[in-house]
Amino acid sequence: MPSTKLTTPAAVRQFLDRFDFFLFDCDGVLWRGDHLLPQIVETLTYLRSLKKQLLFVTNNSTKSRASYISKLSSLGIPAEIDEVFGSSYSAAIYISRILSLPADKKVFVIGEKGICEELEKENVRWCGGVEEDIEDMQADVEDDLEVGVVLVGLDRGINYRKLARAYRYLQREEVVFLATNIDSTFPAKGGLMPGAGSMSAPLSYMTGRTPVSLGKPSQEMMKAIEGRFQFDKNRACMVGDRINTDIRFGQEGGLGGTLGVLTGVCKEEEFLAEEGVVPEVYLDRLCDLLIAKEE
Amino acid sequence: MPSTKLTTPAAVRQFLDRFDFFLFDCDGVLWRGDHLLPQIVETLTYLRSLKKQLLFVTNNSTKSRASYISKLSSLGIPAEIDEVFGSSYSAAIYISRILSLPADKKVFVIGEKGICEELEKENVRWCGGVEEDIEDMQADVEDDLEVGVVLVGLDRGINYRKLARAYRYLQREEVVFLATNIDSTFPAKGGLMPGAGSMSAPLSYMTGRTPVSLGKPSQEMMKAIEGRFQFDKNRACMVGDRINTDIRFGQEGGLGGTLGVLTGVCKEEEFLAEEGVVPEVYLDRLCDLLIAKEE
Repeated sequence: MPSTKLTTPAAVRQFLDRFDFFLFDCDGVLWRGDHLLPQIVETLTYLRSLKKQLLFVTNNSTKSRASYISKLSSLGIPAEIDEVFGSSYSAAIYISRILSLPADKKVFVIGEKGICEELEKENVRWCGGVEEDIEDMQADVEDDLEVGVVLVGLDRGINYRKLARAYRYLQREEVVFLATNIDSTFPAKGGLMPGAGSMSAPLSYMTGRTPVSLGKPSQEMMKAIEGRFQFDKNRACMVGDRINTDIRFGQEGGLGGTLGVLTGVCKEEEFLAEEGVVPEVYLDRLCDLLIAKEE
Repeated sequence: MPSTKLTTPAAVRQFLDRFDFFLFDCDGVLWRGDHLLPQIVETLTYLRSLKKQLLFVTNNSTKSRASYISKLSSLGIPAEIDEVFGSSYSAAIYISRILSLPADKKVFVIGEKGICEELEKENVRWCGGVEEDIEDMQADVEDDLEVGVVLVGLDRGINYRKLARAYRYLQREEVVFLATNIDSTFPAKGGLMPGAGSMSAPLSYMTGRTPVSLGKPSQEMMKAIEGRFQFDKNRACMVGDRINTDIRFGQEGGLGGTLGVLTGVCKEEEFLAEEGVVPEVYLDRLCDLLIAKEE
């Protein structure tokens, strides 16, 4: 069934009344690249005034929760660290608490600072990552038996040596293959750019292995959120711009509702498709929720 | 049917008598990385003494035919430029002669020197490639309407910006997506390393498009070889170490025979599989052909 657009104050009000907990995708919903979308602060303030609990759920693996708070605050969005749930944090929790990686093992990271910071917060040893950027490209690629996990996120410093090292480690079957998320692209100011999934794609092609993803739409991320927060799923709503990540994440996770916005990747015709996953309702922009306020 | 191992001088002699034209894969057959395999020069000299025509058919896109001759000669293998057929050459021919790329269009290259050299020999304009290595990583990624082809080969200088640029161009449907070859890995001295197919894999993941491959086992390469050489396919034999590239290439191309060797990627059990593609006959090492000479 196609999605329904919320067009009247009454429809928005009725929609908002059904939920206590809103999970927000960020890039493409609140901002695009470094550019805040219109009236986002007002909209979030309005939701807080209605006593809604907010959670910023992002697949962006380049920032730790702490740096996300800085980003939110630089854009004028007040938020607590416990209101941020990123795929790097999700991966760090998975490694330390679900995999219970032994102390003599470490994680080889293809990714940026956010991943390394979250791993350190969970006391997980790592190598590669930001350090690898300055490593000698000509050095031999040798196996390292301490590596027990290869974790791949978005890495704008990706290079041949990192791929070769990850491939070397993944040839050992016991090495766990994880991805912060498998988005093929992400929306930046100038257009779509290669995403974390495009960093793990060559490794999948080489090894025939598929990484366990710790970001949307993987339910591993939903499990981690449920482990951290007490909430009634029926009264929770996922808000996002992408059908394949955000909307699927909410629907497969059994949340009470999903809200799509058109400020990111997906186009209106995708929300209006007769078949496949579509958000329950949608808006042109998140700030259109503010029509409920006007009278 | 499983492959048969040639074990006696008589069997080898009978096998050799059936062919006038031998197509050789190089890496894993003649050498591995920079290390010549045993008695290769003697074996090739022996074949030449039997008046066999030799063609070195390689998916290695990093070298032009001219640099391949240097490599062969540095290893003590005398060869003419017309005895070398590389995937970069194959791609350059495809672009200039099959696609007939207009003079106002150019090729965006992800790849190394060999590709750029072969394109220049065919008077094809290119950008990216080796030049991109020194480009400003922070510069904006903008579309360039002159780009009519994205050509991807092995690029040990692969970086995020190259992927982002290729992705930007490939979003235009009319831009042709080519790969010198799609090998996921290649055998180097220290083990398997990421191959050309691992450079195009993220682009396929992002665009949903599959590149046309100009290397083995693609029959586009066989067509190019047939366009260059007059030979009786029934009296031609493909020699290689990889089932999925070399052996398939020979069999799908309708050559009279295929010979596998165990000095590269594939293992004996793969040649002895009951099902799927296997070489008609195989040897431990290419130089085992020399048993036909001894007596």
